[in-house]
Amino acid sequence: MQEKTKIAVLGGGSWATALVKILSENKAEVRWWLRNTEDVQHLQQFGHNPRYISGVKFDLNYVLPSNNIQATIQEADWVIVAVPAAFIQQALSLLSAEAFQGKTLVSAVKGMIPGQNVLITDFLKNHFGVPAEHQCVIAGPCHAEEVALEKQSYLTIGSHDIDRAEAFCQLLRNRYVKANPLDDIDGVEYCAVLKNIIALACGIAHGLNYGDNFQAVMVSNAMEEIERFLHAIMPLPRKLTGSAYLGDLLVTAYSQFSRNRTFGNMIGRGYTVKSAQFEMNMVAEGYYAVQSIHELNKRLNVEMPIVSAVYRILYEGVGPGVEIDILKDQFK
Amino acid sequence: MQEKTKIAVLGGGSWATALVKILSENKAEVRWWLRNTEDVQHLQQFGHNPRYISGVKFDLNYVLPSNNIQATIQEADWVIVAVPAAFIQQALSLLSAEAFQGKTLVSAVKGMIPGQNVLITDFLKNHFGVPAEHQCVIAGPCHAEEVALEKQSYLTIGSHDIDRAEAFCQLLRNRYVKANPLDDIDGVEYCAVLKNIIALACGIAHGLNYGDNFQAVMVSNAMEEIERFLHAIMPLPRKLTGSAYLGDLLVTAYSQFSRNRTFGNMIGRGYTVKSAQFEMNMVAEGYYAVQSIHELNKRLNVEMPIVSAVYRILYEGVGPGVEIDILKDQFK
Repeated sequence: MQEKTKIAVLGGGSWATALVKILSENKAEVRWWLRNTEDVQHLQQFGHNPRYISGVKFDLNYVLPSNNIQATIQEADWVIVAVPAAFIQQALSLLSAEAFQGKTLVSAVKGMIPGQNVLITDFLKNHFGVPAEHQCVIAGPCHAEEVALEKQSYLTIGSHDIDRAEAFCQLLRNRYVKANPLDDIDGVEYCAVLKNIIALACGIAHGLNYGDNFQAVMVSNAMEEIERFLHAIMPLPRKLTGSAYLGDLLVTAYSQFSRNRTFGNMIGRGYTVKSAQFEMNMVAEGYYAVQSIHELNKRLNVEMPIVSAVYRILYEGVGPGVEIDILKDQFK
Repeated sequence: MQEKTKIAVLGGGSWATALVKILSENKAEVRWWLRNTEDVQHLQQFGHNPRYISGVKFDLNYVLPSNNIQATIQEADWVIVAVPAAFIQQALSLLSAEAFQGKTLVSAVKGMIPGQNVLITDFLKNHFGVPAEHQCVIAGPCHAEEVALEKQSYLTIGSHDIDRAEAFCQLLRNRYVKANPLDDIDGVEYCAVLKNIIALACGIAHGLNYGDNFQAVMVSNAMEEIERFLHAIMPLPRKLTGSAYLGDLLVTAYSQFSRNRTFGNMIGRGYTVKSAQFEMNMVAEGYYAVQSIHELNKRLNVEMPIVSAVYRILYEGVGPGVEIDILKDQFK
């Protein structure tokens, strides 16, 4: 009998939950670390995550929820990090570099480490010594909510080691999930960070009563902003109209499920950052991402009008109407 | 006193109506030809188009509705053709080549002449001898319905004569409309034709219960299909992420106002072509466009899986579920 592939998933959010569903249904043994004790107990007792995409029923022969992060990753070949970027340092604080030795780390996080302004994969390399070629990232376009509904979805797995990316793709593929390997790991990771900021900007414009025409122009202009940034930080030939770049941006900027768009929408309608965060009860990654990109860009000096506008709205208290008005005149 | 710019607008649909609003509010003299006698009378009496975006009130000091197409264009410097592609030959049948002499023709049509499979600008050149440099095209991203609501919109004016394009931009620009000239007239014209087919495909997938994840991948793959086609038919350096290309596709593929998406959605839900057309009471340009592109592509042999799928669904009676299933496996 073939031994089950052992996978650890860290994080209890909607994307982690969707990934556990996909992997466990493919008969991998998924050890699942969630921070919250009641959530673990609820999962063990009922087979559902009480907080996110709760309709999904897990087969507990394949899914082993736990509060113990060390035990969770100990025997795993693959460790998937699916904790919001802002909480990663804290979540992994009990782990040592040795704990990750010989394992492949897969980042499912779409963000950067606040304050340090580094990508998740760079943080894992710097902090735990996980070499770049032992890492993968999972890129969209894919909303967890649609995975839960088993709607056809596509994932792109980025890695410097394309064979490793393909091996992870094989763990994901099923009736409703296609997965493709790609070697531009930094490009897709930065793009995933940027698209959350763009989705936030789209939400702001929507909250200010701008329509579809404007959103289409915002997204077109955003693609050029993303291209400029990626070229400056990691010049590589890449097809930005591909699923992992444009597709990922579209699903976030246009979807009803996007937290970042929803958060932006509240800002556009006049909520303060604090009250929007309080009402949403979810982290909008774009809120942190825009600060990181803004900091990074001090060195790169890329022309990034949308990122700059979102930064000034969220961190410098400039009125959303003022900033979108300026963008409006810059867009073509 | 400066004389008013004289503009003729041909066509009574929603896009024609939106253009008349923009141009007449900028104090041009707009002679407006509508085929339907009652519509002309209604406009003359009440200042509203009874059929499309009827909320718009026209100032009849600037808007002169008429049934007489010869008289409408006689004194105009600019003639805007905004009749559905399928009806252009019939609509212009009373006009001679002389009638267009010395005028600039502006195509606001997003389609090709059925049967002949030529772009509108090529038809006007072939049929009326209007030289290419006397022609412009109006490209989106812009839904007429949002112009009516005075939502911020962007237009791209394509022409081989960039000064002429800029002159037309000046007639359009206002508080809520930005306009930019571009020399890739064929590129934007073909792109406008293709995006209607893609929007139709997105509608079909939606009707079959595919979700946002799939749509994002469809649009990403469509951009590559569009790029291949444009490169084959008119190789030019062009930034396909620009508003006139990607933006135009997005506004059509994602908008609630898109006829093509709505039409596709009905096909996906199982309506026949006939019954969908009957219920919609509007022409979905993509229905004709897909046949023209399919015919054109017999010579070019570009790999166009989405266009081919839509063609087979609409013209060869293949089930939408079957075709989208095939696309699903081809997409990345």
